[in-house]
Amino acid sequence: MNNGKDRDGETWVTESCCGYLRQGYRVEEVLFSGASKYQRIEVVRTAGHGVMLINDGFVMVSERDEFVYHEMIAHVPLFVHPSPSRVLIIGGGDGGTAREVLRHKNVERVVMVEIDALVVEVCRKYLPGLACGLDDPRLELLIEDGVEYVKNTEEKFDLVIVDSTDPIGPATPLFNRSFYEGVAGILDDDGILITQAESPWYDNDIQVSMLANQRPFFDKLHIYLISNLTYPGGLWSFGFASKGPSPLSDFDEERVKKNLIKMRYYNPAIHRAAFALPGFVLENLGNILNCV
Amino acid sequence: MNNGKDRDGETWVTESCCGYLRQGYRVEEVLFSGASKYQRIEVVRTAGHGVMLINDGFVMVSERDEFVYHEMIAHVPLFVHPSPSRVLIIGGGDGGTAREVLRHKNVERVVMVEIDALVVEVCRKYLPGLACGLDDPRLELLIEDGVEYVKNTEEKFDLVIVDSTDPIGPATPLFNRSFYEGVAGILDDDGILITQAESPWYDNDIQVSMLANQRPFFDKLHIYLISNLTYPGGLWSFGFASKGPSPLSDFDEERVKKNLIKMRYYNPAIHRAAFALPGFVLENLGNILNCV
Repeated sequence: MNNGKDRDGETWVTESCCGYLRQGYRVEEVLFSGASKYQRIEVVRTAGHGVMLINDGFVMVSERDEFVYHEMIAHVPLFVHPSPSRVLIIGGGDGGTAREVLRHKNVERVVMVEIDALVVEVCRKYLPGLACGLDDPRLELLIEDGVEYVKNTEEKFDLVIVDSTDPIGPATPLFNRSFYEGVAGILDDDGILITQAESPWYDNDIQVSMLANQRPFFDKLHIYLISNLTYPGGLWSFGFASKGPSPLSDFDEERVKKNLIKMRYYNPAIHRAAFALPGFVLENLGNILNCV
Repeated sequence: MNNGKDRDGETWVTESCCGYLRQGYRVEEVLFSGASKYQRIEVVRTAGHGVMLINDGFVMVSERDEFVYHEMIAHVPLFVHPSPSRVLIIGGGDGGTAREVLRHKNVERVVMVEIDALVVEVCRKYLPGLACGLDDPRLELLIEDGVEYVKNTEEKFDLVIVDSTDPIGPATPLFNRSFYEGVAGILDDDGILITQAESPWYDNDIQVSMLANQRPFFDKLHIYLISNLTYPGGLWSFGFASKGPSPLSDFDEERVKKNLIKMRYYNPAIHRAAFALPGFVLENLGNILNCV
């Protein structure tokens, strides 16, 4: 991340990817700039993408398109699991994932474990449209290490969502085999694990390693795709690791119709389409994924 | 487009979008920089995306991901039309679209009308992997104005592909109502028109206007989506305007299997998935599109 004025006196924040790609956003106002024990945190109001949260130089969310990521990380598994009532979110400090999960009336309890209190604090202040779910009485917010939580909890869950940053910095252990083993242990028999699974273009090594680390503990491994406006390359992925339900044959489209949640990205056609993988993705990951 | 060295002495090309977004690519070598009567043309070898063609400051193609755009602009209509043998390509001077069209053995004749000889010349030299189709004996390459060609030709076509730049500069008339009327006139009864249809995030006004201009001349209007690595936001669209065949119910999946063309993006699942539109796209365009 490089914040600076350009020749016209405009301020831009610039994210670097892979040493050969940069994405810059014009800034109208720097709302917050600070650091926690874990990472640098910046919140800026951009000219074109609304308020943006930037951790360690990487764009986490923008107001303009956050609905894509949060609808797709939450509703895909929630409309596949036969009766999701207990959900664990690891990370997701901005609150967007919790907001979408809590739109499901059959969800009775959400535990959200975010390691960094400062992320929650700044999002409550500057991104209230995302953080609004954090005050729902069904949600318990714990500021602690998700890896430790998974090791020590005696609760069981229907759905675990790992809404993490990249496997550099505080999120690194969330991509390890021992973490996935722990998650499998606290998921019930029909349990599903959803993970932020990076870019099929730029992060193929991470995807391969993530899936290999999940493989021993889950019967079904899938990847599904979204179009994320502010992530490098646009094309982004989630991992769908399941002990039971399949993402398409167990998808309960009738429940979507009954639910009447107003969505801006997700719909039944998009649910199915997200699991269609382009040739180059299948070439990279096809030998470790299950067929949909 | 802004080419310049940064503080580390590295050269970057930077594309600007909407005044609030920039995408920069690290350059290893500037291969060509010049101008035709129509536009500035630059060809650079980038560090991460191979050779890149940049017209008037906008990235047209990169070697790394060009297969996405070219497979999807060509194979989607070619596997829907019942017997495509005569194809007109307007624009597409890099040759990638012609290359993919000509991989279909049932295509007997391709007329490609590119306005800018310099685009063809530099792509033949610096992007031979794209331009390789231009020497196929089934292809007639005309360097002239596509609008005039459509007005004056007496040939009929099964498929017209408008592989154009944005509606600023030389491609502007390719988005006009009178052009689409002309195209409808040279398409046979089962004819299909495919158009480069911009970004659903950033170019919604262009999409609405393009579809409104096509509406009087085509029974069926659709949009389908691809993930284009080097276009702003990643999510990109093609228009599918048809006098007869429907993109899904007339899709001939058996022909894909028989064809045995090795693809890197396109496959039957991707064909179907591409027509699934997110809520925000349906909200913008749903009232002018036909249902798939």
